[in-house]
Formats: sequence, structure tokens, C-alpha cells
Amino acid sequence: MALMTGEQYIESIRKMKMNVYMFGKKVENPVDDPILRPSLNSVRMTYDLAQMPEYQDVMTAISPFTNERVNRFTHIHQSTDDLRKKVKMLRLLGQKTAACFQRCVGMDAFNSVFSTTYETDKAHGTKYHENFVNFLKMVETNDFTVDGAMTDPKGDRSKAPHAQEDPDLFMHVVERRPDGVVVRGAKAHQTGVLNSHWIIVMPTQSMTPDDKDYAIAFAVPMDTEGISMIIGRQSCDTRKREGSSMDVGNSEFGGVEALTIFDNVFVPNEYIFLNGETEFAGMMVERFAGYHRQSYGGCKVGVGDVLIGAAAVAADYNGANKASHVKDKLIEMVHLNETLYCCGIACSAEGYKTESGNYLIDLLLANVCKQNVTRFPYEIARLAEDIAGDLMVTAPSEADFRGEVTGPLVEKYFRGVASVSTENRLRIMRLIENLTLGTAAVGYRTESLHGAGSPQAQRIMISRQGNLEQKKALAKAIAHIQE
Amino acid sequence: MALMTGEQYIESIRKMKMNVYMFGKKVENPVDDPILRPSLNSVRMTYDLAQMPEYQDVMTAISPFTNERVNRFTHIHQSTDDLRKKVKMLRLLGQKTAACFQRCVGMDAFNSVFSTTYETDKAHGTKYHENFVNFLKMVETNDFTVDGAMTDPKGDRSKAPHAQEDPDLFMHVVERRPDGVVVRGAKAHQTGVLNSHWIIVMPTQSMTPDDKDYAIAFAVPMDTEGISMIIGRQSCDTRKREGSSMDVGNSEFGGVEALTIFDNVFVPNEYIFLNGETEFAGMMVERFAGYHRQSYGGCKVGVGDVLIGAAAVAADYNGANKASHVKDKLIEMVHLNETLYCCGIACSAEGYKTESGNYLIDLLLANVCKQNVTRFPYEIARLAEDIAGDLMVTAPSEADFRGEVTGPLVEKYFRGVASVSTENRLRIMRLIENLTLGTAAVGYRTESLHGAGSPQAQRIMISRQGNLEQKKALAKAIAHIQE
Amino acid sequence: MALMTGEQYIESIRKMKMNVYMFGKKVENPVDDPILRPSLNSVRMTYDLAQMPEYQDVMTAISPFTNERVNRFTHIHQSTDDLRKKVKMLRLLGQKTAACFQRCVGMDAFNSVFSTTYETDKAHGTKYHENFVNFLKMVETNDFTVDGAMTDPKGDRSKAPHAQEDPDLFMHVVERRPDGVVVRGAKAHQTGVLNSHWIIVMPTQSMTPDDKDYAIAFAVPMDTEGISMIIGRQSCDTRKREGSSMDVGNSEFGGVEALTIFDNVFVPNEYIFLNGETEFAGMMVERFAGYHRQSYGGCKVGVGDVLIGAAAVAADYNGANKASHVKDKLIEMVHLNETLYCCGIACSAEGYKTESGNYLIDLLLANVCKQNVTRFPYEIARLAEDIAGDLMVTAPSEADFRGEVTGPLVEKYFRGVASVSTENRLRIMRLIENLTLGTAAVGYRTESLHGAGSPQAQRIMISRQGNLEQKKALAKAIAHIQE
Amino acid sequence: MALMTGEQYIESIRKMKMNVYMFGKKVENPVDDPILRPSLNSVRMTYDLAQMPEYQDVMTAISPFTNERVNRFTHIHQSTDDLRKKVKMLRLLGQKTAACFQRCVGMDAFNSVFSTTYETDKAHGTKYHENFVNFLKMVETNDFTVDGAMTDPKGDRSKAPHAQEDPDLFMHVVERRPDGVVVRGAKAHQTGVLNSHWIIVMPTQSMTPDDKDYAIAFAVPMDTEGISMIIGRQSCDTRKREGSSMDVGNSEFGGVEALTIFDNVFVPNEYIFLNGETEFAGMMVERFAGYHRQSYGGCKVGVGDVLIGAAAVAADYNGANKASHVKDKLIEMVHLNETLYCCGIACSAEGYKTESGNYLIDLLLANVCKQNVTRFPYEIARLAEDIAGDLMVTAPSEADFRGEVTGPLVEKYFRGVASVSTENRLRIMRLIENLTLGTAAVGYRTESLHGAGSPQAQRIMISRQGNLEQKKALAKAIAHIQE
Repeated sequence: MALMTGEQYIESIRKMKMNVYMFGKKVENPVDDPILRPSLNSVRMTYDLAQMPEYQDVMTAISPFTNERVNRFTHIHQSTDDLRKKVKMLRLLGQKTAACFQRCVGMDAFNSVFSTTYETDKAHGTKYHENFVNFLKMVETNDFTVDGAMTDPKGDRSKAPHAQEDPDLFMHVVERRPDGVVVRGAKAHQTGVLNSHWIIVMPTQSMTPDDKDYAIAFAVPMDTEGISMIIGRQSCDTRKREGSSMDVGNSEFGGVEALTIFDNVFVPNEYIFLNGETEFAGMMVERFAGYHRQSYGGCKVGVGDVLIGAAAVAADYNGANKASHVKDKLIEMVHLNETLYCCGIACSAEGYKTESGNYLIDLLLANVCKQNVTRFPYEIARLAEDIAGDLMVTAPSEADFRGEVTGPLVEKYFRGVASVSTENRLRIMRLIENLTLGTAAVGYRTESLHGAGSPQAQRIMISRQGNLEQKKALAKAIAHIQE
Repeated sequence: MALMTGEQYIESIRKMKMNVYMFGKKVENPVDDPILRPSLNSVRMTYDLAQMPEYQDVMTAISPFTNERVNRFTHIHQSTDDLRKKVKMLRLLGQKTAACFQRCVGMDAFNSVFSTTYETDKAHGTKYHENFVNFLKMVETNDFTVDGAMTDPKGDRSKAPHAQEDPDLFMHVVERRPDGVVVRGAKAHQTGVLNSHWIIVMPTQSMTPDDKDYAIAFAVPMDTEGISMIIGRQSCDTRKREGSSMDVGNSEFGGVEALTIFDNVFVPNEYIFLNGETEFAGMMVERFAGYHRQSYGGCKVGVGDVLIGAAAVAADYNGANKASHVKDKLIEMVHLNETLYCCGIACSAEGYKTESGNYLIDLLLANVCKQNVTRFPYEIARLAEDIAGDLMVTAPSEADFRGEVTGPLVEKYFRGVASVSTENRLRIMRLIENLTLGTAAVGYRTESLHGAGSPQAQRIMISRQGNLEQKKALAKAIAHIQE
Repeated sequence: MALMTGEQYIESIRKMKMNVYMFGKKVENPVDDPILRPSLNSVRMTYDLAQMPEYQDVMTAISPFTNERVNRFTHIHQSTDDLRKKVKMLRLLGQKTAACFQRCVGMDAFNSVFSTTYETDKAHGTKYHENFVNFLKMVETNDFTVDGAMTDPKGDRSKAPHAQEDPDLFMHVVERRPDGVVVRGAKAHQTGVLNSHWIIVMPTQSMTPDDKDYAIAFAVPMDTEGISMIIGRQSCDTRKREGSSMDVGNSEFGGVEALTIFDNVFVPNEYIFLNGETEFAGMMVERFAGYHRQSYGGCKVGVGDVLIGAAAVAADYNGANKASHVKDKLIEMVHLNETLYCCGIACSAEGYKTESGNYLIDLLLANVCKQNVTRFPYEIARLAEDIAGDLMVTAPSEADFRGEVTGPLVEKYFRGVASVSTENRLRIMRLIENLTLGTAAVGYRTESLHGAGSPQAQRIMISRQGNLEQKKALAKAIAHIQE
Repeated sequence: MALMTGEQYIESIRKMKMNVYMFGKKVENPVDDPILRPSLNSVRMTYDLAQMPEYQDVMTAISPFTNERVNRFTHIHQSTDDLRKKVKMLRLLGQKTAACFQRCVGMDAFNSVFSTTYETDKAHGTKYHENFVNFLKMVETNDFTVDGAMTDPKGDRSKAPHAQEDPDLFMHVVERRPDGVVVRGAKAHQTGVLNSHWIIVMPTQSMTPDDKDYAIAFAVPMDTEGISMIIGRQSCDTRKREGSSMDVGNSEFGGVEALTIFDNVFVPNEYIFLNGETEFAGMMVERFAGYHRQSYGGCKVGVGDVLIGAAAVAADYNGANKASHVKDKLIEMVHLNETLYCCGIACSAEGYKTESGNYLIDLLLANVCKQNVTRFPYEIARLAEDIAGDLMVTAPSEADFRGEVTGPLVEKYFRGVASVSTENRLRIMRLIENLTLGTAAVGYRTESLHGAGSPQAQRIMISRQGNLEQKKALAKAIAHIQE
């Protein structure tokens, strides 16, 4: 049976000895660290839900490679139906965690590497596709979580990889051996890396022949020698250490980013998926980015559902749920959120088969999807703050709520509708704070902007895919213009 | 063969003797009237394209009722694939006409009446479904264009049908006979009515038992005694009478609206599809509106393609196509337009089978689709005007361009990029004017707002379909709220 | 007494023999032409209101040059109070005409030429300022309307004046004589030119030494030999010829644009205000544009008031004025409109004295003002269309309303609230059509975009005036960054 | 001399014995508490700048009551010039603190109580105005900071004060004595209360005769018996306790909110400014809200300047400052920010004299100002996050930057442009994080929404002040509608 339980997953990660640093020190037990654990719990949800019969169709699939039922997060899309189910799965997980659950990045890497290796092999006679299929079978059989790592630090953004002062600002091969390669560099902003068994590394952008050593893709286990991680700070991160379940808003789930450093890491040949074929770097990036931009039309919609729900609960608790402007704002939030979902679904439904046999999303629509994700969650968040009221940023701490002197005062003065407990009112305020300003805002806002590529990256793709020449021809035909 | 050619279609309409009034007088020959003809040409395009092999898949389908290939505009959707193809067909027609081609309203009526009659019959033991299927077969066999008429004049919008001072402000039965009913009333804003062989009349809103006589749906030929039409004025309508092909922007295609009056029209029993079963009026309206809101995610996108193309051509002709702000505005236009398309596709892909066997779109997403259509074309139009420049509203007439004295001056001073003729520059300006301010702006702007229901109508549906209770439950689970 | 009555103004224009072309023919009597007359009426309003005691403070001022009371449209601003009163005057006129009243362009030319000539003389020892003051006194004494002409045709926008294939695409000196210069070229999009006694011509952009012959500013009477005009088409222009006061929406007022050609026009020395001092071309343009961008914070706000009022009347007549979404849309329209007004007022209140002694607006805020004007009228128009309903684009003609057969039907079926006549309902619909799609939409929409410079022109100025370096220093101080 | 130095101010606050609770415990030394001190520093800046000659004009004024130079924060506006200078002063302080500096709320209370007491006395023969002027002289002479407290907890928002289950949810008189009154209740979200010498309490909304005991306004010193405060949590508040100056982004300044409880507080007669004259409660609220909505057109603009500057610095450090889309986003940020400033200036310039002799802002424009503040800072923040890049939410801690193992890695991999130190790059990222997600986001985002009244409160005022009837009359005149 290829499916792990959530508990098995946690224990499998616990067994891995990863180099994790936070606040300048090594974290000896990441699995039980209060700042890091919620992020692990989010990934765990991808295992827990896959065990539940009511979610079997959306959470799992039959692998064409192993012929076994596997977690959909390890599945190679066989149809547009699979693409749509992916979006639904991500929305579901967003709803259940109100956080980034991280595992989609591996899924998107699988599917882009799968088709790109096929076409690279065809052009170069290499064996990357076989390498990759073998790797994938192992992943499916073990139900592993795999990080997909793309973003290099990049240094001076006005300069190409080989023109950087420090060559390591882009991941590159530093030594070539008969049995593999040695790589150095780093991948920034890696959300799921800490909770992954393996990592797939891909190039971060299109490459020219000058960047040969930078055109490298491979997989390694996360406890490989030479890999270390430095955890990034999030808004309100240390609040998780204070021991208050109320104050954190979402006490169970989260997401955490890490700079992941590869200090002369050895990669055996069998785990290499690209190695110097610079002209295929762009294809891998474009496809990965495309899949990942589709993903945002699922996961952020799920988180949006929670935020909309939280705002609606706040309106109930404030006694404002019948005000026409509040109802209208909730409609607007739903409208914007479902528009994102439409984009996620549409780029899936319009997907098509690649040469390798798996399904790719419609790239234009996937980029349109992500571009909207860089905008609408901000407006949804603003509307949530509007409905919640000032209390979401001025509510006292749980310690005040429990305090001998302060407790009764908080209880008395922060009561909203008489039938609702002050505790519940504070809880919903904290959840809204968490999603709009706190740890989860990192994922719901800033990463909605930059994850899977910053807004301008999508605009460039929209420009390329928008087929302006055909549109000009249509206009000229209508206007009876002959040139 | 069930498919008419365009020419056959024109002649078939010419043969019908309809009562058409314009500027206070009866129009004796509507088919050749310069104001009305472009509208007919748009419908004709639905016939012409269906004849072309390259469009066969999108423009036609095999009818499950006649087992013949029929125009998709007469087809009952058999799958979500059919729903998506409908959207693609509408986009194609928008691209080819840059106008409203009108025939979708009948298609949407067919599909909503098909499923509603089935459920009405089940509840009431009536025979409406059989009536409708017979009617449909006749339509398919003859490849007829059928108008779908919903919007009553409504009078005082704060009052229900039966509370209006004048009972005729909503269509209603005035006499019941053994062989049928006699109806009176009117349908407003009917775009395709003039170019239709038949008309399907449906109720305009949900009804209560008090409105029994208003819960009436039926079909009649457009040359039935008692029916007359008064053509509405459009911005720049009479410019079409001036004989200038340049000045009208789009000299071939258009769309025209009419108030359609039913003055004691007799409807035989076999063409009645609802008659007093008030509780099913709402279902028919909701489904028709849903299908028609989906439609806007196709047709307006196609018109948008032309407008984007026109703006891009204008930028070329102005010598401004390399300016980064111009390129960015074109990207934004594409982005907004494709977002509309995403919504059209998504509500189709997420459609489902009704009890009657045909496919209905996802109602929430279809309403989201239309809601976006009430916004984005306005911004696309604004951006087009931005790129075009002032010339689009200050360019002189074709008569000036041809004038002895004025011609050389216009030629000289309105030249943009030296390699482009002034005539072509003026032509593209006129097309942009047509789409943003002229006759086509009626369809691209105002009817994007109000067609298939005004914005608030969609918001009410979004509110109903948005499932706020489920979202609240999700938020409470995350916030650990127990009540 | 320096103030003409409206009637005197009309007659003074009638006496001038201008070369006006429209539809390829010379217009023998422009003053009484149905397409052109409404535009003249708008300018007339600047005379009529100046005669009314209740508007004396806003419409007139005491000239420091003649010490007489003059029309404020000929006044040199003596204080920030004058600047604010200008904005209020323009708003008032927008409210009274719902159109472009054209005379502000001369006022803005006066004030920019006044201060620029002063500084040019100081640098070059020229006598332009004296020339200008003498000219101005004559204008004030005669209460003349003067067009301010800036926009050259420009041809290929990617090329500088001297790099155009046709040198006449920018106005330039073709001959220098002892007593003056001869100029050739054209000014495009001139709204008030037809109704002006004189015209001030200014350069259209910053110039380099290569463009010496293009750095020319001067004034001439509009009936000077060699000047001719070609009237631009507007949406719905010829509807004014049809003789229906209802159908035009605004039967009394309008605005009309013309291409104005200078074919070897002689300019005597005393009316020259710049002649080859290329480095001052930019100052004149920047100041004129600045004043004119302020103007839009007045005039378009006044037109907006009418459109908001019209939408509110439509809501009343439709019986929809109590719907919360309608009330909210009206609030939004007021909010956006008053935001524009805030910008007009703010750039005035923050104005400052130039070296020449008159007052200049704050350039940053004036550009911000205009930038908002390129956006908000579009949204106000969209909301007006939303509130009005489909009828605004499908209502039949006045001829239908008066027709024997059609009249009673229109009367019956287009009645809204029972207490309101159908005629009044149709009238308000036509006014909304006029402002959003018709002749007035040219001024309220497209010219809000491009008048006084296209959006990108303001963005360049905002970039220059925004003082980013100071803002960076503020941020570095807060972040304790030392470099 | 009426002006305290910053140091004197700090010491004067240190001497006051206030009851401050945080995290459930009494704070013994609030002045030196790391979470609370930055908020005090912000207020201190209002003293420091007033000492600097270059800011004398904007920071101080001559009191008409003491004839001495006083801090402008204690000044009664004598002209529209004073109103504009207020806005400039607030913008300056926003620039210098990038935080809420809290003292404007007292200034706004002074000016609204000043004019309202005058009119109340006139109607009721009371002596509130004299009370207030005496109080004000004392404040000016001592250069005190005074909190202005308006917002009651309000409980169930669908119920009036007297209809609440717990009567204390609105501040009210519980006992009337010959020498004064005893009050009970609380004021929520009080930003400056902790750093104030006195507090002015005002009613929170319009009152009906039933609410007599709630129509109470008065002043008391902050160390009065019965007053206590519970500090609200802010996003990232405890990060200030961690001892890292880098990680907090803005290590010096901040703002802190508190629930302020009045538990049977005695108020002597001479400090009472309203007591049961219910019909004047609304006037006081409306004027205070009006002044405070004006304030946001200054302070938030100043904070916006810092955020725009920070984004521009980030672009420099990332090597992205030449990208056209980055430049365009900075222009948009400036544009939006200056639009807010325009509104602040305009409602000031259009202010008018009250019966009491001080100046009131234009209420319509002040509400328009605040309404824009509920929108634009969110978009400015979004654009800042866009320009900054993902690093702003994934950068490691200062401890990592200093750590033995991690330090060199952070140094290496988070370098941007080679010439800029990684430390400086991290510092600017943290400042952006602080303003968009951290402690300062509370002030820049959520309080921009709710401070001085939530968005809907402004819309109600815009509706009331927008004079729709006049606008309807304008439209009817243009459309020739006679009723």
C-alpha cells in the first residue's frame, strides 16, 4: 500500500537528520519546535485526507507507473480531469489548513520534469526521462513528500547568472565526476523543504549557452551531506512560542520558508534530469511555473474560503450581519475568490497532452490565473479587515483574557452580541489577524504576489501567449483595412 | 440537410412579414434597411461559419433528437464539452462580427426550457416537455433562428407584477381557450428578435401564486398576428444611413434592439411550455439567466479580442507600439479579457447533468462570470481609448477625407507612421470609436452591464450560491471555536 | 465696461469670417449650424453667468492691468484664492452646460505665457512679456474668447519634430521678415477654436536647439488669412440635425473639435511671445499643461454633478431609488467626483507666486489631479449606466414617441413609476446616453483621458516631481541604514 | 515658555502613575518597556520638532488665548491656513516616525469641543465653553498631550446604547453630585492614551433623548483614580522584546492601542463639556470625526512617503530600479499618496469659520478624504510588497545574520547589488515588512480603515453632504424636464 498515514509521515520526517538553523542556532528537534511544527501539520493534512473515503477521489489516483493508488500529490496528470481534480484538492487543503500545505510544489515539479526530460532526451539522446520515471516510482511507492526548488538568490537582478560577482548566487555544477556531479548554490524562499523527504532542484530561468553549468536539474534526499537550511522570519512567528492557542489565530497549521544551501553536494547520475542542455532550461521553468500558477487558483481560494467565513462569523458576532454594506462586502469577497477559482479550473479544462503523455495546463490562462492571485487576495483581506473592525488589531492577549484583574474587564468590554462568548469573538478576530497580518498573511498576501513568479513574470508570459498578431488581423478584417 | 446557408437564411427572413417600426414609421423592407441590415449580417455569420469545414466541430453538433448534424445554436448540451464548445463558438463569432450576433439567446432558452419543462411535467403531470421537444425538432430541422424573450418592461421596479398600475407591464394571459391562450404584454431590449423566425417567451422573474397569469412560456413565429416591434435608438445609429463605410467603423455587422409588443396574440396549446405553474417560473428564469451569463464569457471576449487588436494596430500606426506603457496596457487588456474567458470556461467545465439529461452550467461560476463582464469591458474600453489617442473622437468625416479642399489636408495632417496610409489610420480610429462610443458600444458596454440581468441580479445569485454557512464552519474549525 | 452679454458675444462671432469645413464642405454660417451651435452656446454661458450678480465673485475679477472688472476667463491669477475660484467657476460651468465650454484653454494660455515670457525676457533681453501684456489688455477690454492651441499632429510619435518626414506635422516658422514671421502647420483637437476671437499658439513639447524653428508662440485673430478648420466627427453628431430635442439628450450645449490649419500665416512681431528660445518651450508647455490639468478638476466635476444627478433622477423614475445598492452607487459616484474636486482645489491652494507675479498651481498635485480624471469619470459613467438600466441604449426615438401607431405603445410600455411621464423618463435616459456614449461622452470620457495630455504625460511629470530621493532618505533614516 | 522639550515630556509622563496592564499583568514602568516605549517616542517627536527653528512655522502657533507660542497640537484653528498647516505638520510627523504619533486626536477633540460647547451654551445657557477654554489654556501653558476618546465598545452593533444588555458598553453617568459626576464605561482602541497627560472623553455617536446619561463629555488627568488601561496586541509586538534592532524594522517609533476603562471615575463640574444635552452629541461626534478624517490626509501620507521611499530603496538594492514596471509602480504609489494629500489639503482650504470663531474643515471633502484612506494605503502596501520581493517575508533573523555558522551564508546569499551590504538590504526589507505586515501595518492598514470611523460611516456622511437634490435639479434643467 502506497499511502502513509499522517502519523507515519511525521515519524518518517522525525527520522531524517536535517541541518536546520533558526535564530542563529541549529534546531535539534525541528519536528517538535513550536514555530516549525504547524508547517509540518499542514503537510500532514495531505496524508490524513488521503486516508478518508469521502476524499479518495480528489486526494488519490491510480498511478500508471505502479498501477497502485497513490496520493494525488505524486501523480502524473493523465487528463484534464486530473488537472481539475488537482485544483479541487488544493482548494480543499486550503480550507482545512488556512495555510500553505507545501506539497504541491513537488507535484508541479514532477509533471514539468516528466515532460521536459522526455523532450530533452528526444533532442539529445539522454536518459533523463528514464531517470525521472524511476525516481517517481520510488516516490510514489513510499508516498514521499518532495520539495520542488526553483528560485535562486539571483543577487543583482540586472545581471545574468554568469555575470554575477559571486557565481554561487545561481546554483551550478562545480565538479563533474564519472558517477555524478557536485553542485553549489542555494534556493531561496523554500516553503516545504523542511518537511520533505527529497528535493527536486530545477534551474530558475531560461539560459543561454554561456550558462551551461547552471542548467542543472536533479533530486537528492533532504538529509544529504552539504544541505542546510536557514529558516526565514515571518510576521508574528515567535508568538507561537508564547504558548497561547488563542493569540496565534491558527494554532495548528502554518507554513515556513527556508533558505536552502547546497554546499558542494554530490548528485549521483541516476538522479540527474538536466545537465547542460541549456535550451531546455526555459521549457522546464515555463512548465513548472505554469503548473504552479494553476495551483494558486486552488490553494489560495481555499484559504480565501476560510477568511470569508471568518469575516462572516465576525459580522455575526459584532451584530452587523444584517447591514446591507456588510452583506455586499461578503458577496464581493466570494465573487473575487470564485473568479480565482474560475481561472484555476479554466486553465485545467483547457489543458492538453504533451509529447510525453501527461497533461499540461493552458499556459496563457494559468498565467492569467496567477496574475489575478497577485491582486484579489489583497482586496479580500482588506474587506475582511473592514468587516472585522478595529478589534482585530487592538484586542488584548489571551493572558489578559485569563488575568485576574484584566480577565473580567476583557470579558465585559469586548463582548459583542450578548449570546456569543467574548472568547469566541476574540478567537475569530485573531484568525482574521493571522490571515491578514500574521504568519498566514505571509502566505495569503506576499506569497500570492511572488510565489510561482512575481506579477511581472506573468505579464511577460501573457504578452508572449496573448497572440496579438491574430487579434490585429481580426481588427483589420472588421475595419476593412488592407495594407 | 439541416443547415441553411447564409444566403438562404437572409431570404427566409425576407419572406417573413413582420411589423417593424422605426422613427415613428413602419419599415417596409427591414432586410435592406441600412440601420437594420448589419444586425442581420451578424446572425448570418452563424450560418456562414457552420458551413465551413474548419469550424464544423465548434459550430455544429449531432442532435440526439434528429440524429442529424445541426447548428450548435439549436443544440441541447449533452456534456460539459458541449458547454465549453458553446463558449468557444461565441468567442469565434464575437471575433468575426465585433458585434452581438443574437442567436445565443435562443440557444439558452432551448436549454433552460428543456430541463424546466421536464421537471414541471414531473411535478404537475403536464406535457410541456413533449411540446418543447417537438418544437425543437422542427427548429433543428429547419435551422431556424429563435429569439429568447425574457425582460418585461416592469414599470415601477419597486412593485410586483400584479401590483403594477398597468397590468400589461408584465406579459400575461388575457384569455384562456380550449385550443390555447391569448397573451398581452411586451418584451423589452430584444436584440435578435427582428432577425428571428420564431420567438420563445419566458417569464421575467420568480412568481408567487398571485401571479398565475404571468407564469406563461410559449413559442410563436415572428410573423404571428398581433406582434409588432419598435426599434430602439443606438448611439450613432443614423450614421449608417450616411453612406460612409469608413465613418461607421464596422460597416458590415451590428446588433439592434427592439421593444416587442404582443397585442392579444393567440398561442396554440402545442407551443405552450408553462402555464400557471408559478413555482417553476423561477427555475426557468434562473437557468436561462445562468446559461446566458455563461454566454457573455464567450461573445464579449470575442469582441474584446477585436478591440484589443484594434488598439494594437492604432499603437502601430501612431508609432507608439514600443512604448513600455503601451505594451503594458495591451497586456492588461489581454489579461482582463482572458479572465472573462476563464469564467466562461470554468462554469462550463463544472457543469452537471439535469434530470432531463441536458447539461447545466455551474450557476455560481456563471454568475461570477457575468459579474466580471459588467466591469472588465469598461476598463478594456478605457485602455483602448488611452492607446488610440484623441484622434478617435476628433477625426474628420470620410467626406472630409474625400473632399477637394479638405482631403489633402486630412491626408497630410492625420498621417501617423509614414508607411501607413491616413485612410487606414482613420479606419482603425473609427473602429475603436464604434466599439467604445458608437453602435457597438451599446453591446460591448451597456449590454455587458445589463444583458442577462443587471449586476445586482448576479450579486443576489452569488449570495445565494456562495454557501456562506460552510465557509463559517471552516473558519470556526480553524479558530477552534465551539458554540 | 469690459463685459459682453451673451447675445453680444454671439453676434461678435457671427461677424467673423472663418474658414470652417465639415463633411467635406465649407460651412457658410457656422453660428446657426445645428451641429456647431451648441458648442457656441456653451461658450456663451461664460458671458451670461458673468452678468449675474450671484455669480459675480466667481465669474469675474478686477484686472490689475486695466483696473476694471473683467471676466475671470481673461484674468491673470493674483493669489491662490484666484486659483481656487477658477476651479469653482469651471465646476459651475460644467454644471450649467454638461459639456465643454472651451474658454478655459485661453485662460490657461494667458497665465502660462504671462510667466514664461517674463522669464524668457529676463534670460534673453526680449520683449515678449510686454507684447503679451499689451495683447492681454486688449483681450480684457474687449472680453474676447481666445483659444489656446498646443497639440500638433505629431505624425510618428517615435520621432522628434525635425525628424518627421513631413516638417509641417509640427507648427514651425517658414519665413522670417522684419515685421514678423510666417508660420505653417496645424493644431489638432482644438475644442474652442471655432468660437474664439483670437488664438494663442504655443509649442507642443520641450525642444532641443535643433528645433529652433518650432519654438514659436504667438497670437492671431481667428479670421486671419491662411487659417482654416476641419470639424471632427463626434459620436452622434448628426443626431443634432434630425430636429429632435429629446433624442439629443442635451439640446442646448455641446463642444466641438477642429483640426486648425495654418497655411503660411503671417504673424506681426507685436504678437510674438516666443521665437526660437528653445529652452523656454518646455517651461511654457509644462505650465500650460499644469494649469490645464488643474482645470479638469473643475469642469469635469461639474459635468459629473449633472451625470450623478441624472442617474439619481433615473433611479427615481425607475422606482429603484430605495434599493441599497443604488444608494451605494450614488455615494460612490459622489465620492469619486469629489475626489477629483479635492485635487483641483489642492493644487490651487498649494499654488505659489512666479517671478512674473502671477500664481502657478502646485505642479505635482495638478498632474495627480489630471491622472485621476483619466480614471474616475469612466467609473462614474459605468455606474450611471448601471443605475439607468438597459433602456438608455434601447429607448425608441422621439419620432416613435410622437408616432401615431408607436406613440401610445411607447407611452404605455416605457412608463416607470406611474406618477412620472414617459417623456420625462425618456429624456433622462437620453441625457445619460449623451454623457456616456453620445456627443458629450467625447468630452466627458475620451477627452478626460487625453485633454491636457494623455495619462502617460502626467505619470512622467509625477515621476519628476515626486521627489523620490527625499523619500528614500526618510526610509533610510527610519531603518537606520548608513551607506 | 509654553513648549516642553522631548526629554521633559518623557519625564513628565514617567511621573504619572497610570494603571497599565499588558499580558495579564500590571506594567510597573511603562516608559521603559520595550513594547511601549516606541509609542512614547513617536509622541516625543511632536515635542522635538517643535523646538527646531526650521519647523517652527508648521509645528507651532501663537495662541489667541495665551498670546504665547504653543505647540500646534494644542492650537485652536484660526484660519484655513491653520487647517492646511495642520495637514502639513501631520505629514511631517508621519515622515519622521513612520508610525502613529497619536497627538492629533487631542487636537481634533479641542477644536470640536471648542465649537460645540459654544453652540450648546447658546442653546442651553450652560457654561461648557468657558470650562473648556480654561482647560485649554492650562493645556497650552503646560504643553500637555491630551488623548481624545470617542469609541465605546458598543457591544451588539445592532442595538442602541440604552438597549444593550450591559449598560456599561457605552460610557455613561452613574451618579450625579453637586460638584460633578461619576462615570463608568470604557473607550476602546485608544492609541495615544498611554502617553497622554489628560484625556478628553466624548460621546461615540448621535443620541436620542433616551440616551441622556450617555451624552457626556469631560476631561480628566490620566492618573485619575478609577482609570486603567489594557494594552492591545499588535502583529509582531513581542518582536520588540527580542532585542534586535534590525528585525523590528522600525526600532525607534511605533504606536500602541489600549482599552481604557473608567470604573466609577469622578469628574468635577469645571471639566464637564456636555452633560445630557443629547441633541449636541451628534454635532460633537460629527465635527470630531470630520477633523480626524482630515488628519488622515496628512499622517498616513507621511507614512506613505516612507513606504514609497523604502520600496524605491529596495528596488535599488535588488538591482531592479531601471525596470519600467518598477518605475511605473513607484509612480502609482506616489500618485495614490498625493491624491490622499490633495483631499487633506482641499477639505482644509475649503474650511469655514464656526459660530465660536474657530475653523472647521469642509465636512464632505473630509469624509471623501478618509474614504480614500480606507483604500489607497492598501494598494500602496501591495505595490511595496511587489517591488520588495519575497525576501521581505522570508529573510532570516538578525541572530542568523550574526550567527557563526549562518552569518556568512546569509551575508553571501542575500546580497543583492554587489555594492550594497546585505545588512542594509535586510534592514530595508524589515522596514517594508513592518509597514505592511508588522506593528506599523496596524496603523497604516487596519487603522486607516477604521480610525476616525469605518468606511461605511464616511459613506453615510457623503450621502448626507452630497446634495443629491441640487444635482438632480441640474440634470433636469439640462434635459429640459418639467415636472
